Amino acid sequence: MTKVVKFGGSSLASAEQFMKVGDIIRSDAERKLVVPSAPGKRDSKDTKVTDMLYACYAAAEAGEDFKAQLKAIKARYEEIIKGLHLDLSLEEEFKVIEKQFKEKAGDNYAASRGEYLNGIIMAAYLGYEFVDAATVIFFNDDGEFDTEKTKKTLSERLKKTERAVIPGFYGAYEDGRVKTFSRGGSDITGSIVAGAVKADVYENWTDVSGFLVADPRIIDTPPGIDTITYRELRELSYMGATVLHEDAIFPVRKEGIPINIRNTNSPLDEGTWIVESTCQKSKYVITGIAGKKGFCAVNIEKDMMNSEIGFGRKVLQSFEDNGISFEHVPSGIDTMTVFVHQDEFMDKEQKVVSSLHRLADPDMVDIESDLALIAVVGRGMKSTRGTAGRIFSALAHANVNVRMIDQGSSELNIIIGVSDEDFESAIRAIYNIFVEVQL
Amino acid sequence: MTKVVKFGGSSLASAEQFMKVGDIIRSDAERKLVVPSAPGKRDSKDTKVTDMLYACYAAAEAGEDFKAQLKAIKARYEEIIKGLHLDLSLEEEFKVIEKQFKEKAGDNYAASRGEYLNGIIMAAYLGYEFVDAATVIFFNDDGEFDTEKTKKTLSERLKKTERAVIPGFYGAYEDGRVKTFSRGGSDITGSIVAGAVKADVYENWTDVSGFLVADPRIIDTPPGIDTITYRELRELSYMGATVLHEDAIFPVRKEGIPINIRNTNSPLDEGTWIVESTCQKSKYVITGIAGKKGFCAVNIEKDMMNSEIGFGRKVLQSFEDNGISFEHVPSGIDTMTVFVHQDEFMDKEQKVVSSLHRLADPDMVDIESDLALIAVVGRGMKSTRGTAGRIFSALAHANVNVRMIDQGSSELNIIIGVSDEDFESAIRAIYNIFVEVQL
Repeated sequence: MTKVVKFGGSSLASAEQFMKVGDIIRSDAERKLVVPSAPGKRDSKDTKVTDMLYACYAAAEAGEDFKAQLKAIKARYEEIIKGLHLDLSLEEEFKVIEKQFKEKAGDNYAASRGEYLNGIIMAAYLGYEFVDAATVIFFNDDGEFDTEKTKKTLSERLKKTERAVIPGFYGAYEDGRVKTFSRGGSDITGSIVAGAVKADVYENWTDVSGFLVADPRIIDTPPGIDTITYRELRELSYMGATVLHEDAIFPVRKEGIPINIRNTNSPLDEGTWIVESTCQKSKYVITGIAGKKGFCAVNIEKDMMNSEIGFGRKVLQSFEDNGISFEHVPSGIDTMTVFVHQDEFMDKEQKVVSSLHRLADPDMVDIESDLALIAVVGRGMKSTRGTAGRIFSALAHANVNVRMIDQGSSELNIIIGVSDEDFESAIRAIYNIFVEVQL
Repeated sequence: MTKVVKFGGSSLASAEQFMKVGDIIRSDAERKLVVPSAPGKRDSKDTKVTDMLYACYAAAEAGEDFKAQLKAIKARYEEIIKGLHLDLSLEEEFKVIEKQFKEKAGDNYAASRGEYLNGIIMAAYLGYEFVDAATVIFFNDDGEFDTEKTKKTLSERLKKTERAVIPGFYGAYEDGRVKTFSRGGSDITGSIVAGAVKADVYENWTDVSGFLVADPRIIDTPPGIDTITYRELRELSYMGATVLHEDAIFPVRKEGIPINIRNTNSPLDEGTWIVESTCQKSKYVITGIAGKKGFCAVNIEKDMMNSEIGFGRKVLQSFEDNGISFEHVPSGIDTMTVFVHQDEFMDKEQKVVSSLHRLADPDMVDIESDLALIAVVGRGMKSTRGTAGRIFSALAHANVNVRMIDQGSSELNIIIGVSDEDFESAIRAIYNIFVEVQL
């Protein structure tokens, strides 16, 4: 049995946090492969090492003196080494880094050093082998992640060692130059490692005890979600990104490996299990509620549109031609509404409208802004009659005007459109009816 | 003030019905322009004159003896003439028809004679001028209705006469050959005439007292609809076609002329007013419920589909390329469902699926059949909170499983998908909550 364990930046911000992580890893012999992030903030006023590295490299690239900045970074690591009583020096590493910075090795290289150095410390602390991610995780010349080469190299490399630390966030091009994933990309590294070795579980240790039923900024201490399916999580993507990087799902999902989101500061909490499918019922009818403000609705009217083959395609073509993706397309008989992200749409609004007129020749186009979309998601909804009735009764009771409803035949979710100003009350109303009142 | 009055076949099936029509027209001096259909069925076992004409002409075209059939048609008209005590002979007309049939003048010509002859009788009976539709209603060489030429000719011709009868259902090509509208097309003629003379109202006299809130085959004696907007009627099109031809709306709508559906057999009933817009509230929150069985849902899944610009367009393209129109496209985050007519889709199912895979490269395509769509429509829904809550609570209470929900931001309607077998109970549940209980 092998568990791949990834630790986020706040779990590795200090020697004290490192010790918690050490305890967690040593408490379970199956936690054989460790993916660390760079040290995060020790308190709310602190700076993440990754941000220090970006700033330091920017100075280097501008030809300014960056010694003091680099020294501050080194101090962060030395503080950890000292706190852990390790016999380890990063002198040589920092000499190389300073040289590379002077030679303008790029901000990808610079940023990646946060994880790289933390990985060396973690390996020394645990007595695990250090495997540089640049030797096992690859990108092709177009900058796309090279699944096949990575999988092959990584699985062969990890056959040679039982216990290893592989730093998160980066890999390398064919020629060895370092390239990073997008911010939060250590989640992806963990998932890739788990997929490559066909791990039994991918534990993602962070500073919260998993996903919550609703946004804690809107709902006071909402309960956690025990088990969520990959599909439910995707449907709740409006809330997901802060806990787990969206791209971290696919490598493990393909191999049927569950993800367990855990809390380093509260290691006894079971956290949230993200699984392919489950017969386990969720505690409530709904698994979660998530939403987002800032959508526009483009309403299109045309007499007899549904008997005009190609009309819908032409409407979507008008958005595609202008590089706009859409969220939902609810429709009546002679009306069709396209929901788009307001910030993406705003600049291109008039171009889209003229494309619409040119391609689809509608009778009327009308744009509404400042709308919010709310996804109510739950595998339990299909087998529970009356979910929709409860949702809309609760919204009516809360004086929320429902501007759009969309439920496909997966019956996994209902998408509701409301105005931005009704967003919080709508979420509260739905939460209350399913979690507080449990009607 | 001018009213255009159109009478359907059952209103003109016999001399007795003609007399009712005469009374109606004479009771209001503004009923100046009359559009008659061909004589319909006198009782449930009878044959419509139009069907007799099609059959007679089919015999003529096959080179068979059609004299007896033509004689039976003539007898229908002579019975009416005799019953109305008119001094009118159709001998010459029938000689021409017999000759044209022998010369294979076409089934359009043949079918049009039903209205033509009825128009002659109606004009004689009322003392109105007869205006042959072939001289005022035009089609271009492609068989498309020629709006401009018709409008010009018709309005000029009708300036020369105060009171006229214009037979419904047909017009002519540039070269004078007769062409008919689709079945039920007298409704269109009436609308065209009303639009051309900018009538104050277009009265459409039939054998029901207007539109009903729900289908009387499912609901026992549902109430009538007093006033419905053009848009509401379109949204209820699943039920509309039997009362009024779909294409009859546009000519009058463009001119802002209301349509009044009336009952020849109950002329004191106010019937249903179809209007552009109204501040008149409907009696119930909903204006009507209509639905249709026989839809398929094509469920398409693809990870991250909503960030893939062009995905939705490619999905619809796959249907368009195979000549399939769609009804609704509800969507989740990684799922999209396309609702299509089962009978249209069945033969092309596998072609569409392979187009989908080729164009859009989905993770999964899954088809469900035997679904019904129900449209709950009402201009009152926007201003009444909780409509959706009531609908879905009622459906849950009736044990109906809701498979799809679609509400665009017009807030004029909610479209609900259920399985075919739940169709009637769903309609009853919605009807009860809004009309019977009026919660």
